[in-house]
Amino acid sequence: MRMLKETFSVPRADMASAEAFASVGNVGIGFDILGHCVAGAGDRADVRRIDEPVVRIASIDGVVLDLPLRAEDNTAGAALISLRRALDLPFGFELTLHKGIALGSGMGGSAASCVAALVAANELLDEPLSREALYPYALDGEAVASGSRHGDNLGPMLLGGLVLSTHDRLVRIPVPAEWHCALVHPHYVLETRRARAALAGSYELGNFVAQSANLALVLAGCYRGEAALVREGLSDVLVEPRRAPLIPGFAQVKQAALDHGAMGASISGAGPSVFGWFEDAGSAERASLAMASAFADAGYASDRLVAPVDGPAARVG
Amino acid sequence: MRMLKETFSVPRADMASAEAFASVGNVGIGFDILGHCVAGAGDRADVRRIDEPVVRIASIDGVVLDLPLRAEDNTAGAALISLRRALDLPFGFELTLHKGIALGSGMGGSAASCVAALVAANELLDEPLSREALYPYALDGEAVASGSRHGDNLGPMLLGGLVLSTHDRLVRIPVPAEWHCALVHPHYVLETRRARAALAGSYELGNFVAQSANLALVLAGCYRGEAALVREGLSDVLVEPRRAPLIPGFAQVKQAALDHGAMGASISGAGPSVFGWFEDAGSAERASLAMASAFADAGYASDRLVAPVDGPAARVG
Repeated sequence: MRMLKETFSVPRADMASAEAFASVGNVGIGFDILGHCVAGAGDRADVRRIDEPVVRIASIDGVVLDLPLRAEDNTAGAALISLRRALDLPFGFELTLHKGIALGSGMGGSAASCVAALVAANELLDEPLSREALYPYALDGEAVASGSRHGDNLGPMLLGGLVLSTHDRLVRIPVPAEWHCALVHPHYVLETRRARAALAGSYELGNFVAQSANLALVLAGCYRGEAALVREGLSDVLVEPRRAPLIPGFAQVKQAALDHGAMGASISGAGPSVFGWFEDAGSAERASLAMASAFADAGYASDRLVAPVDGPAARVG
Repeated sequence: MRMLKETFSVPRADMASAEAFASVGNVGIGFDILGHCVAGAGDRADVRRIDEPVVRIASIDGVVLDLPLRAEDNTAGAALISLRRALDLPFGFELTLHKGIALGSGMGGSAASCVAALVAANELLDEPLSREALYPYALDGEAVASGSRHGDNLGPMLLGGLVLSTHDRLVRIPVPAEWHCALVHPHYVLETRRARAALAGSYELGNFVAQSANLALVLAGCYRGEAALVREGLSDVLVEPRRAPLIPGFAQVKQAALDHGAMGASISGAGPSVFGWFEDAGSAERASLAMASAFADAGYASDRLVAPVDGPAARVG
């Protein structure tokens, strides 16, 4: 038996690649805890297993160029350092990043680099980990980028679909296959740290109660596949009012989504991208055009993504 | 056919009775929006349809005697007034209340009176309403008692089980049949208004994020029937810290529940009753004794209820 196993064993490759897709963080009503993937844009990582016990970044190309090349300062580099340290690996990784998601777009660009790098590196381990087991290292990487340990983009990238991401647990929430997201990204950079600063200060309990009710309605609507519940709940009364002024044309873009049948619309992640949820692909497509048109009226060109809410997890290859 | 129908039609009774059971409001992580019924204690209402277009309270007996007899000032009376007004009824109601739930106990006593009265009166309508349709009138009644329009006790009493109650919607959440609640009521009155006053002031966003994550974990755990998720989420980090000092022995009572296998334990409604959720009836029964013992150590006798989390709706008869 032992011989047989050896006969069929394939030498582990010393190189692997993975792609992680864009995501809508927060989903309006789940600040820092809820997110879902959106196919159509993503970051790729090529990772090489190297003998030296270090993590180094060979190069970064794509839509973002001015990222730190020092591994400790780079979100993907920091995630691999955390992985190496936790598993006490005797080897290292060399990382090449291909950025497909703009930074400061609110589409989870830093998380995608983290997850792509980890999913690729995981293929090079002698005993690869589960996607859930990669989550803590992804959180370590994300903290370097955003200054905050939150997994609302990481969870969906690791598992796919709509995911509840707490500090130490990922829970995938079912979503009807036909529900689609329109995600529109204006060419305007809003730094995550600036968007976070807008949230400083204290909050009223009444707003929390309203937001909790909305979160619960959306979760119940997803589990039951009832758009009416999501339509009632998908409204951010807590965070959106503080961040909306940072996004040119936000009110008009949101209204364009609602006018075209959105169950709800709000800021994707820290913004400035705006998303809407729709009951079918056609509505989402039409709405995305109207949303882009509203951004144009505010003076900004934009990119559009229309894809199922129940989007794909990061994939190897 | 018409004759046949008339032959078999039963004259509508001019009197009906209903019972609404105690409930655990808030359930720790769903302040003002989540609750579930607990069989074993309840308020009963006898309602008589009268020709005069008024609502009057004939008498109140049971465990609470010092309640307003003026209909406008009584929670159940106000609910019936609201119902009469909305439906523009040409007749009135005479109400007799039998209180089985102590006021100021955190077990939904005012809500139970409201719901029992409405469910009984509904039987006397020429075209009875659905339970959901009674909800707005119940909210009107509850507002008289608590000064706040919240339905976390009303929803479960109307529908049964664990219910999400927003301003205008009730959603029943599935709960495994074997999960049990231990609800322990110390003989100590904590007025709802005083418990609400403890919540004044502002809140940190971080606490809200943690509480939202807990709420989402509990909801996902209920939908999936996974106790591990509820065990992780059933912890109130927002409201409990402010109210716990108002309840003698709270920390010890909660610890007793956790020591006996509670998935989580917190304050029922506005307190001082304390509840725990358990995976089976035996654990809940044993825990309830330990919880009562801890209240005794703090100087208070108590009553115990042990019943399924998926408790019964108010019933006619």
